[in-house]
Amino acid sequence: MRNFKLTLCYDGGRYDGWQRQGNSDDTIQGRLETLLSRLLDQSVEVAGSGRTDAGVHALAQVCSFRAETEMDCAALLSEIRRWLPEDIGAISLEEAPPRFHARLSCREKTYVYRIWNSAEPNVFERKWMLAAPQELDLEAMRRAAAALTGEHDFAAFCANRHMKKTTVRNLKSVEITRMGGEIRIALTADGFLYHMVRILVGTLLEVGEGKRAPEDMAAVLASRDRMEAGPTAPAQGLTLWSVKYD
Amino acid sequence: MRNFKLTLCYDGGRYDGWQRQGNSDDTIQGRLETLLSRLLDQSVEVAGSGRTDAGVHALAQVCSFRAETEMDCAALLSEIRRWLPEDIGAISLEEAPPRFHARLSCREKTYVYRIWNSAEPNVFERKWMLAAPQELDLEAMRRAAAALTGEHDFAAFCANRHMKKTTVRNLKSVEITRMGGEIRIALTADGFLYHMVRILVGTLLEVGEGKRAPEDMAAVLASRDRMEAGPTAPAQGLTLWSVKYD
Repeated sequence: MRNFKLTLCYDGGRYDGWQRQGNSDDTIQGRLETLLSRLLDQSVEVAGSGRTDAGVHALAQVCSFRAETEMDCAALLSEIRRWLPEDIGAISLEEAPPRFHARLSCREKTYVYRIWNSAEPNVFERKWMLAAPQELDLEAMRRAAAALTGEHDFAAFCANRHMKKTTVRNLKSVEITRMGGEIRIALTADGFLYHMVRILVGTLLEVGEGKRAPEDMAAVLASRDRMEAGPTAPAQGLTLWSVKYD
Repeated sequence: MRNFKLTLCYDGGRYDGWQRQGNSDDTIQGRLETLLSRLLDQSVEVAGSGRTDAGVHALAQVCSFRAETEMDCAALLSEIRRWLPEDIGAISLEEAPPRFHARLSCREKTYVYRIWNSAEPNVFERKWMLAAPQELDLEAMRRAAAALTGEHDFAAFCANRHMKKTTVRNLKSVEITRMGGEIRIALTADGFLYHMVRILVGTLLEVGEGKRAPEDMAAVLASRDRMEAGPTAPAQGLTLWSVKYD
């Protein structure tokens, strides 16, 4: 059995997220497993670096799969590209060491949340951004982000109430930048809990609107209570930007 | 009657082009005229700087219209934005001098043709580019473009066979640049004939593929024969980039 590492991009707009849930859903994982199983004439299981929610996009999602085949990577990549739908793209394919696993081997992930913060229309990129034309205090958002950065118990920022494993994560950085009418929030961590990025962004947006003080973040973290954090920001603004391995 | 100058952007993908043709079509002009006539409770005619073909996009199309209204520009702009569909955006609205006319007053237009020249997929911007993964000789294309630049009779690059007026235009510049996997051809002229940009691009692409020599451009111009030029490049790669007035 050979082991492969495949890097993908996708416009998640019309998919039910990464993870295959049944036979009737339309997920990225489901599409890939169906394609690879037919192409390689064997049952292929694909592991993603993580599950992106329905409607979330990816600039570079990484996944791995094992298969028996004589095809070289270039030929297999070309076949994958030929059969993928237009809104899922195969960036690269390489043979990976036997123990490589896209999720288990992952060391760090970066998500970018894009906000269109202008009354001017953005007809071309609107599908990958949250439209939020209201005034946002970026300095307050940056102070709140600084308070959230580091190793913390992020239970308050997790939508899964029955999380049995640890909810401690190392949020390595949160960078908030403005480029014209667009605001980008780039979040890097060793891992993210269920909906964690979107709840962090929803909370930071409330800070930006003056509905919360940046100084309250320590108390929200300490509460470990989902009700203390802000709302879950819409999926459409979120893109999995990059995934790092050793 | 007040005179207004409105600047628009649009994703032309699902429209039948700029120009209203009948009552059943879905055109940018038709949408605007319907919206403005209802909003201002009078019959409003909108003049565009030029007609973009079905499927062609605009980053900054300019149009003008006359209407009797007490509304100030900011309020009217806000109403227009409220009622326009998501793929048509109103960038700005200002009151114009009485003699201003978006087409007749226009001095210069720039179109950009975007080409995705890579085997790697581009899932996000594919709808606004022509996918042409083959190798293209940009230096040859630039030599051909230089031969086409200047004041010439562009009859060979015009799809309208029954053009009674002059087919002489001043093609002020053609700039061909590569940015990663993307090639952009920016064409600026005092005016463009019907399909002229797309036939110029189709011809330049043939030069890039080695099917034509850059040195042949003078003969194509001199022929004044549409059959001597290359094919009409697809509409989807074309964007009206900017329009200049005195």
